Amino acid sequence: MDFIGTHILSVNQFERADIEHVFDVADRLVPYARRQKVTRVLEGAILGNMFFEPSTRTRMSFGAAFNLLGGTVRETVGISSSAIAKGESLYDTARVLSGYSDVVCMRHPQPGSAAEFAAASRVPVINGGDGANEHPTQALLDLYTIRKELAAKQRGLDGLRIAMIGDLKHGRTVHSLCKLLCLFNRVQVVLVSPAALAMPGEIVEMLRGAGHEVRTSDELEGSISHVDIVYSTRIQEERFESQEEANHYRGQFRLNRAIYTRHCEPNTVIMHPLPRDSRAEANELDTDLNEHPNLAIFRQTDNGLLVRMALFALILGVEDKVDYYSHPVRWHSRREY
Amino acid sequence: MDFIGTHILSVNQFERADIEHVFDVADRLVPYARRQKVTRVLEGAILGNMFFEPSTRTRMSFGAAFNLLGGTVRETVGISSSAIAKGESLYDTARVLSGYSDVVCMRHPQPGSAAEFAAASRVPVINGGDGANEHPTQALLDLYTIRKELAAKQRGLDGLRIAMIGDLKHGRTVHSLCKLLCLFNRVQVVLVSPAALAMPGEIVEMLRGAGHEVRTSDELEGSISHVDIVYSTRIQEERFESQEEANHYRGQFRLNRAIYTRHCEPNTVIMHPLPRDSRAEANELDTDLNEHPNLAIFRQTDNGLLVRMALFALILGVEDKVDYYSHPVRWHSRREY
Amino acid sequence: MDFIGTHILSVNQFERADIEHVFDVADRLVPYARRQKVTRVLEGAILGNMFFEPSTRTRMSFGAAFNLLGGTVRETVGISSSAIAKGESLYDTARVLSGYSDVVCMRHPQPGSAAEFAAASRVPVINGGDGANEHPTQALLDLYTIRKELAAKQRGLDGLRIAMIGDLKHGRTVHSLCKLLCLFNRVQVVLVSPAALAMPGEIVEMLRGAGHEVRTSDELEGSISHVDIVYSTRIQEERFESQEEANHYRGQFRLNRAIYTRHCEPNTVIMHPLPRDSRAEANELDTDLNEHPNLAIFRQTDNGLLVRMALFALILGVEDKVDYYSHPVRWHSRREY
Repeated sequence: MDFIGTHILSVNQFERADIEHVFDVADRLVPYARRQKVTRVLEGAILGNMFFEPSTRTRMSFGAAFNLLGGTVRETVGISSSAIAKGESLYDTARVLSGYSDVVCMRHPQPGSAAEFAAASRVPVINGGDGANEHPTQALLDLYTIRKELAAKQRGLDGLRIAMIGDLKHGRTVHSLCKLLCLFNRVQVVLVSPAALAMPGEIVEMLRGAGHEVRTSDELEGSISHVDIVYSTRIQEERFESQEEANHYRGQFRLNRAIYTRHCEPNTVIMHPLPRDSRAEANELDTDLNEHPNLAIFRQTDNGLLVRMALFALILGVEDKVDYYSHPVRWHSRREY
Repeated sequence: MDFIGTHILSVNQFERADIEHVFDVADRLVPYARRQKVTRVLEGAILGNMFFEPSTRTRMSFGAAFNLLGGTVRETVGISSSAIAKGESLYDTARVLSGYSDVVCMRHPQPGSAAEFAAASRVPVINGGDGANEHPTQALLDLYTIRKELAAKQRGLDGLRIAMIGDLKHGRTVHSLCKLLCLFNRVQVVLVSPAALAMPGEIVEMLRGAGHEVRTSDELEGSISHVDIVYSTRIQEERFESQEEANHYRGQFRLNRAIYTRHCEPNTVIMHPLPRDSRAEANELDTDLNEHPNLAIFRQTDNGLLVRMALFALILGVEDKVDYYSHPVRWHSRREY
Repeated sequence: MDFIGTHILSVNQFERADIEHVFDVADRLVPYARRQKVTRVLEGAILGNMFFEPSTRTRMSFGAAFNLLGGTVRETVGISSSAIAKGESLYDTARVLSGYSDVVCMRHPQPGSAAEFAAASRVPVINGGDGANEHPTQALLDLYTIRKELAAKQRGLDGLRIAMIGDLKHGRTVHSLCKLLCLFNRVQVVLVSPAALAMPGEIVEMLRGAGHEVRTSDELEGSISHVDIVYSTRIQEERFESQEEANHYRGQFRLNRAIYTRHCEPNTVIMHPLPRDSRAEANELDTDLNEHPNLAIFRQTDNGLLVRMALFALILGVEDKVDYYSHPVRWHSRREY
């Protein structure tokens, strides 16, 4: 696939080679994300960071990624009440706003809105989340994190063993991640959730159709013993009849240091798409794991920067010029990784 | 007029030569707006983009225009509830905030607020719309668009034939455009509106006082046959007694492909200040014209970037240095125009 | 103290030498704040300007200060309702968001939140105000202003005579200023307030413990005759039982041109932390002083830029490189000071 000028709307548009290309570019951009080097390759380029639905962390990540390549960011947050009141179509919004930038990131509550916006846009559009539909860069950063964490342990994506835990019915991120996993070989997936929040059948079928081994369970402790990755997600109380039922289930699927130590292999990496619910009644991924070296949740968000930088570089066709326009940083930092 | 350090508050402050100067500078900035070249001429300069009243497209346009000259943007959106609750005067707000930037763009719901802000400001202020009063850069971009569209057809602003359609009573943009047209010669204006939404008498008198020919009509189809420009505007339902009456009138003044094809000369250019109401009951400028080559509404917003870039360059006295500090873009884009 | 990588959370962390170092660096940065020179020393660095509680002027000041050193700014305004609703801890927020920037400025309504955020942050954090607790850069800019105003009159901070007026009980800025004054010698402080809004006893004791002379008064006119600085602050009507009582007191502590001229030495400098309440019933610092050359309130906000620039330069260790990466400005401004 030729990335130049391409919209990034869905994980379905990628083949394995595309994804590996994105990840290889991301790897080469580490010195910029770590502030060893500064590049001007996107000097003068403008990102239109259009968050019609607010999302601080995703917005900041896209914006910082563009800045780290030397570009400039113009932003909007929230749906302009006046434009809606005045009956403007998404087509018009896209035609106009895309005229102010070189690439657009867009989040919008309505499923399908990103594709609709992209169809009218005059510049490439990256879907930053369109409701329950897609959030492709989250799936890419998750997969990139898995690859990176496993590489440090001399393992790769083929043959991956992963447990996904929590609300697998509504979780957009685990659905997208499963789609991406279908591009790889011999993956073993354990799906751990309350029966009422099980992974949709079509995704299970898709995994099996790709030749993967899928097991399901409604019990946490016996499901995480032989996996490389434990991917924990949210169980929202709104999905249950009562607060008590919600707390009961959330308690059953909570991963903490004691359970991790007793049941997991010592190399098992812990992931979560964030935000996680740290209130006592939920605490789905216990804060007593915060200092654990295998807790990768903040490395995940760091990797989000790299994957987004890589996508920008590829879409604007500068992945081979980043170093040419670079120089060492001029300030002293005590940044912690 | 010497633009350096000047506030841009009203269309009344311009003479014909000033406007032509702005437009000539805008023409020379096309390679930057089209991302063929990048300039650093405003490196280090800060635009204070102060939208006390939200307006996504105008805010984005001013911000992107400043970025395209190499400058940096600091923004605020909405009136700070705390400052108002604490009784701060606009004078104090202007003294303080103007200290953080080199030029200010300001939108505010209160008529006259831009002039009040400018009187206290320590840097030049561009009025980005002060309530029902003025929005001078919109009028300039409209006139610039007319000039550019007609130039492609070997015509000029002198001798222009234009029809203005819709709510001409409340439309700030058509009022300002009429004022600017008074600086040119032999303009023929057709004013098409329901009687209750007619152009104010003083503006009609002003046009006639400038030697222009003015006709009024409450009927669309017979009014658009011999014009260079059809300038459509909104008819808001709030102006009518009932939804039915509103829809009736909006239907009467709707321009669509069938009416355009039957009644207009083949070169007639279609404009609209945007946003347009694309809901079925309004649809004042029918979406079936979206692909028509004479539909200039998105070229209008592109031209807004150029006019705002030109104003910034003139106010900061860099219009002759933009190229000196330029270099070619470094990225590959498939931007569509 | 070594500033590189240090959090700036409280005025208590500074010794006299530290403060003088900040102020000396601020002095050297004047050509950049005045737009005589432009520097690229922080090119590629990102400030995370995190205003979980809105504050337009403080946010703009931090952002512009970082831009004036060549850095880039990513911002957020308001507490993300979704993150709170989803139960994210401040720890997680800090881990994630600090990954997107090289330094963070943070304002938050909750006392202690800045320290909590800093403990989890991976980059240095500047407290931009954490509720009633601290706002150290405001105190620094106040003290820097006093130093600068007095230097013009051949006086220094040792031996300073200052009157503080208004609500001294709740005023975070005067509390912090008093703490900083304890680092200097032979200061005379006159505390002028209604009895119910008197300076807390512990702060009075602290001043006396530092060897300073403290007088208190509930009467304005006799208290401002022999001081170098009159520091006026807000008296908020919410502190009183009735609107009448509030207006009565606010009238009693209002400084205007007549009172100033009759009672103050000709060199006395007038300060206020802003915003000031300019409504007729409050008008705590009368607008009839707006043109007075000794009114320093807008020089204060300008000095805020310099102090914040100095802190950024010190924290990122570039204070000696700013000039090396500089060039003259390229635009013509008629900026007023």
